[in-house]
Amino acid sequence: MPGVTILGIDPGLRVTGWGVIRADGARLAFVAAGSVASDSSATLADRLATIHAGLCSVLADAGPDEAAVEDSFVNRDGAATLKLGHARGIALLVPAAAGLPVAEYAPNTVKKAVVGTGHAAKGQIAHMVARLLPQARAADHHAFDALAVAICHASHRRASARLASGVAA
Amino acid sequence: MPGVTILGIDPGLRVTGWGVIRADGARLAFVAAGSVASDSSATLADRLATIHAGLCSVLADAGPDEAAVEDSFVNRDGAATLKLGHARGIALLVPAAAGLPVAEYAPNTVKKAVVGTGHAAKGQIAHMVARLLPQARAADHHAFDALAVAICHASHRRASARLASGVAA
Repeated sequence: MPGVTILGIDPGLRVTGWGVIRADGARLAFVAAGSVASDSSATLADRLATIHAGLCSVLADAGPDEAAVEDSFVNRDGAATLKLGHARGIALLVPAAAGLPVAEYAPNTVKKAVVGTGHAAKGQIAHMVARLLPQARAADHHAFDALAVAICHASHRRASARLASGVAA
Repeated sequence: MPGVTILGIDPGLRVTGWGVIRADGARLAFVAAGSVASDSSATLADRLATIHAGLCSVLADAGPDEAAVEDSFVNRDGAATLKLGHARGIALLVPAAAGLPVAEYAPNTVKKAVVGTGHAAKGQIAHMVARLLPQARAADHHAFDALAVAICHASHRRASARLASGVAA
């Protein structure tokens, strides 16, 4: 299948989900998905190194052309926000250090692209991802969420391409 | 000079300071210091890649044995906390991915170790770092702050070693 290979990442310190799809116009195909869990009894630095090694290995295996990372909710718990920021930094770094363009999408944007509304429940995301990518095999909801981020990017880059060709016409 | 080479890091998205010292018991020697600035007009992912490349190059040049990273203040601005978390994630990752032990110190702990009180002004840190490391040449206060983190780690690891030998006796 021609087109572009997209790596979607749903970052988290405990579990970082990842999902790879091929997009050719409106056609989408599942490539792979999974998650990288870090040992909560390890030091913060070692947990980040685990996430880094996991994502580097995904990048080496899947050879994506572009990456998309989900934005984090900023909540009132500053310490939790900081921790999530650490993990998200690694998620943005790995594709950027490999020279890939990295897009970022807010959770509501991802939901809207996948289920049509910004206020979808967790189960709905997995349901629609399974509909859009019938071959998808994902271990957990983190991997499904990451596939949703990749689908969102495929839809947005297609809209941008249509816009660009419209402007050129 | 025998002893241990310590890399101190003061993480920031705009500027990340770094400082390398040698510590042999109570004797400290300046090795190198500097800072890695990221282009604020670049994407977040590319800014993190810049910080990562800069710190990897410091690690390759200085070959530290241990690293210490300053904790971040968690402030009320969640978006700012998240951004700082991204940069700090990279600061923790680089030495951890190289297999180095990485210590973390709160800003007040660093100030206390260097100037004797947890509520020192910025200028006081640079002044005391210059007193403790007379050969220190640092471009900016980020580099001085990073040297302060390294000095703090030298002092804490020495205290731990004394404690350990006391227990053994």
